Amino acid sequence: VNSLPGEFELIERYFRPLAKAFPGAYGLNDDAAIIAPLPDHELVAKTDAVVAGVHFLSDDPADLVARKALRVNLSDLAAKGAVPRAYMLDLMLPNTITEEWIAGFVSGLAQDQEHYGVHLIGGDTNATPGPLTVAVAAFGDIASGRMIRRATASRGDTVFVTGTIGDAALGLAVLHGDAPELDAGAANFLIDRYRLPQPRVALGQRLPGLASAGIDISDGLLADLGHVCAASNVSAVIEAARVPLSGAACAAIAADPRRIAAVLAGGDDYEILFTAPPSALSMLAEISRELGVPITEIGRVEGAAIGGKAKVTVLDNRGKPLAFDREGWTHF
Amino acid sequence: VNSLPGEFELIERYFRPLAKAFPGAYGLNDDAAIIAPLPDHELVAKTDAVVAGVHFLSDDPADLVARKALRVNLSDLAAKGAVPRAYMLDLMLPNTITEEWIAGFVSGLAQDQEHYGVHLIGGDTNATPGPLTVAVAAFGDIASGRMIRRATASRGDTVFVTGTIGDAALGLAVLHGDAPELDAGAANFLIDRYRLPQPRVALGQRLPGLASAGIDISDGLLADLGHVCAASNVSAVIEAARVPLSGAACAAIAADPRRIAAVLAGGDDYEILFTAPPSALSMLAEISRELGVPITEIGRVEGAAIGGKAKVTVLDNRGKPLAFDREGWTHF
Repeated sequence: VNSLPGEFELIERYFRPLAKAFPGAYGLNDDAAIIAPLPDHELVAKTDAVVAGVHFLSDDPADLVARKALRVNLSDLAAKGAVPRAYMLDLMLPNTITEEWIAGFVSGLAQDQEHYGVHLIGGDTNATPGPLTVAVAAFGDIASGRMIRRATASRGDTVFVTGTIGDAALGLAVLHGDAPELDAGAANFLIDRYRLPQPRVALGQRLPGLASAGIDISDGLLADLGHVCAASNVSAVIEAARVPLSGAACAAIAADPRRIAAVLAGGDDYEILFTAPPSALSMLAEISRELGVPITEIGRVEGAAIGGKAKVTVLDNRGKPLAFDREGWTHF
Repeated sequence: VNSLPGEFELIERYFRPLAKAFPGAYGLNDDAAIIAPLPDHELVAKTDAVVAGVHFLSDDPADLVARKALRVNLSDLAAKGAVPRAYMLDLMLPNTITEEWIAGFVSGLAQDQEHYGVHLIGGDTNATPGPLTVAVAAFGDIASGRMIRRATASRGDTVFVTGTIGDAALGLAVLHGDAPELDAGAANFLIDRYRLPQPRVALGQRLPGLASAGIDISDGLLADLGHVCAASNVSAVIEAARVPLSGAACAAIAADPRRIAAVLAGGDDYEILFTAPPSALSMLAEISRELGVPITEIGRVEGAAIGGKAKVTVLDNRGKPLAFDREGWTHF
């Protein structure tokens, strides 16, 4: 039996406050919202959904589920150089969901709205006989013509990543009991990185004009670099030893060096991978210092491989190519 | 076992063609889309999701599921006066879905894209252990400041509806075996009206400047008129005998007059309910003739009831108020 209040009461009590600062949301009291980009800007639009048992664990706290659902979308906007502004929300709720859960979910949204300066502008709640499902459509502003594309990397560009790579994949391994040797501090750090992405929103909006191409790392470093290469018709060579690792990830790899595959191919990093010409280096260093976010050079863009096929090569610390079983994971 | 191709192949083979005519979709080969309203316009944004077993029947044909998911969103844009332009799509697919089903789903989208002039600009496919779920976010253009609101109906306005009311609710009753006396022609007409909404897209975009307030009828005529009244702080009186009915609905009500409740409260009509001042009447008649869509006057807007509470009154053909068990249905 579903003990939730009706949809109208849910909106009034919980969701309306999330919309109050965005005039075009009309207090969620109309059928649609109005949104327009800033003058001389366009809207960057992205949608992504998360499903309990697929993208998060069914007993993850409600506020973290909300923040993860929102942040995976903000991460795409960040990688495209956009300033996030608003989002819409479709909630498919199984009948096990309580009003307390909704309150926690909404408090997670409120916290991230404050942090990222975004507003709920519309949505829909539905009953489902299936798992909790949250679909978000997010909107950001970008100066017209300046969205950072996948398809515009050039031979001679440098490949960069923000933050550290592989923490989320290792965090999931910890949750599955696959890294029992890690101390509690390292284990919790990695789990947090899996549960709560830290999209590089402040940094991403500094990249238009500097980055030649970009993508957020959700499928895995190798797969997402592969997407950039395929779209740009180039190849890339990265050096495994230059991929930035957290202390916890270093500890995990020290205990079992095969875990480097999870780092390079694991996914869920929500860092930005981008390419930039050498001329951007000093500006990037300054932005990194200013925002306190590491930006690390991990490789270079080369011409398309023989046969025109885009290819990503990983070199070990002797400069020899490494082989991997798979280049990341897809959603199937 | 899921026999579907991977996500990237699905996009390439089936979804990319739906995006080819919209430059900002980048062939679904980037992480986000670019959309900007026409000059001196704003975007109207709406999201709505449908779940198998809740909003449609699990064995409904794939193309109809696609078209219904899209059309319930286009219906909102139409009621707001917007010209639909683009949409994003989140698909949650159970492992029973086949490639043939995807092909049917996409052919339904292609058909409606052609019909309504909209384009797929982004999306996401996910596996789900639950029922098929389709979330759509739709965008339309509206001249700045001209969106038709819920909150702007005035005392003295006339209440209008487009098309005929109650067909979808009666169609669902037919599907449930609750109207065995209807002939096959009437039964199939009503079922079609349930399965495939006909959003009033061409008509809706003619209403800005004429309609004072509007809403699409999804929760039911009485509930949706109630939403307009509550948002506008007015009351409304409608005459049951003036509510426009199809021949099939007339036959169903002739067989059982209690079915008028399903007509007035049933929902899923996806017609437009709007209010307009008497000065709009001749223009509305002309638009109705030109587009071949009935526009019927069913009542009037009055001041807020005593205590300031918005209220909808239905009069029978002697002018006496009718009572209903419920004022439509909500999603819970």
